[in-house]
Amino acid sequence: MLSNTLLRRVEWGDCDPAGIVFNPQFFRWFDHGTTMLYEAAGWPKQQMLIRFDALGCPIVETRATFHAPCRFGDDVRITTQIVEVKARSFDIRHTLTRDDVVCVEGFETRVWTITDPERGMRAAPIPEELAARFRA
Amino acid sequence: MLSNTLLRRVEWGDCDPAGIVFNPQFFRWFDHGTTMLYEAAGWPKQQMLIRFDALGCPIVETRATFHAPCRFGDDVRITTQIVEVKARSFDIRHTLTRDDVVCVEGFETRVWTITDPERGMRAAPIPEELAARFRA
Amino acid sequence: MLSNTLLRRVEWGDCDPAGIVFNPQFFRWFDHGTTMLYEAAGWPKQQMLIRFDALGCPIVETRATFHAPCRFGDDVRITTQIVEVKARSFDIRHTLTRDDVVCVEGFETRVWTITDPERGMRAAPIPEELAARFRA
Amino acid sequence: MLSNTLLRRVEWGDCDPAGIVFNPQFFRWFDHGTTMLYEAAGWPKQQMLIRFDALGCPIVETRATFHAPCRFGDDVRITTQIVEVKARSFDIRHTLTRDDVVCVEGFETRVWTITDPERGMRAAPIPEELAARFRA
Repeated sequence: MLSNTLLRRVEWGDCDPAGIVFNPQFFRWFDHGTTMLYEAAGWPKQQMLIRFDALGCPIVETRATFHAPCRFGDDVRITTQIVEVKARSFDIRHTLTRDDVVCVEGFETRVWTITDPERGMRAAPIPEELAARFRA
Repeated sequence: MLSNTLLRRVEWGDCDPAGIVFNPQFFRWFDHGTTMLYEAAGWPKQQMLIRFDALGCPIVETRATFHAPCRFGDDVRITTQIVEVKARSFDIRHTLTRDDVVCVEGFETRVWTITDPERGMRAAPIPEELAARFRA
Repeated sequence: MLSNTLLRRVEWGDCDPAGIVFNPQFFRWFDHGTTMLYEAAGWPKQQMLIRFDALGCPIVETRATFHAPCRFGDDVRITTQIVEVKARSFDIRHTLTRDDVVCVEGFETRVWTITDPERGMRAAPIPEELAARFRA
Repeated sequence: MLSNTLLRRVEWGDCDPAGIVFNPQFFRWFDHGTTMLYEAAGWPKQQMLIRFDALGCPIVETRATFHAPCRFGDDVRITTQIVEVKARSFDIRHTLTRDDVVCVEGFETRVWTITDPERGMRAAPIPEELAARFRA
């Protein structure tokens, strides 16, 4: 399955008064991790949407477990990988580590969405060319 | 079980290039919903921590399901309620609606945490006075 | 000159490890203050852009002075007012107070922008109907 | 004068419904630019505060001019440099470019602050060892 890893320095503004990363920031980083996964698949997000005439890949479900806090100045590693490619959606896992210790795990399900003349948008089958790259 | 509701106007800066709320923002709002739930219990967060000599209530697990997008200018309603009070942790549900349509549901588990002289911090039993308010 | 005031509770996620509002948050609040000023002028932002066939009102210059820190739980008041309406731009002042003490002052210059078939976008005269409301 | 440059990819969540970077994000990036400048001076921020027994370097004034918008996926370069070192404060300039075009310029004045037993905090002379590094 396709996978990609990013490095990230925890910034002052990522942290809360307890001195640890404010949990919504992790979801920002995971979203960027997914963007970079598309790029690793061969298509930067905007190009992918144009190439396959899609509207986007909105998240329909996400969850995360927090094992250890991250602090200002920490260098963390976020590995984003495809877990499953279904007909109209795909599952992604994000694993954030610091010095090989898993601090946060995130999971998300995204739906392949196209423009619908009547309803504005609707789910559609993931193009086989893209699905093949995700499964690689 | 204790419950509290907030109203919120979706701001320009909450939204992404697709014109909908960027998903990490919901987690910011949910976090504030929990803060206001403590206040509804009778203790603003900082006072609660001092009163019960606690370090905080970090999230150990969260998840959310996204049913409908929210857009710039929407007035949304976030209801935050205690779902279960366990010995050392408690579960919270957030329900975000717009015109009585559920757009996002969030769940979180938070651990009651105190200072530990050796390990820095550790989970501890939720004080009965607070637990009673949460269950009210 | 047109003026509008908002109340805002400082949230946990607005604050940094020093326990005070992280300065970029003030610019988020000021941006929302400007949005609500348009609404006070009679047109919510999206309606204003459609009504006058405009692309937006991007900021070309902003500055702020910080007199006193704001902390988690503070209730602050943000007054946003038109300072000057020029041919193609307008100046706005934001004054953030807590208990009548001025904590932050912000200033911004925004340009009235329309679609240009060749250059994508360009500055244009502010419609007189809107300018009259701003000056009211 | 001390200077440091960072590279940054514009993320989806940095952008607003107009598809351009929401202006408060630039101030987040500038803040991180300053943090990395301290590190370039030889002291990561937390170590610098401990080493010189300081409380922080809060911003008292900031301003920015926006020359060209940045969009999702842009690779930008932020150069942060000391402009002037005064007795109790220092000025910093941030220059954000994309393909050698200046998109945003930011300026900030920060005050060297120490703990004051009576007033909580107060401005103090910048230690000469640090000032010398800033001027290098």
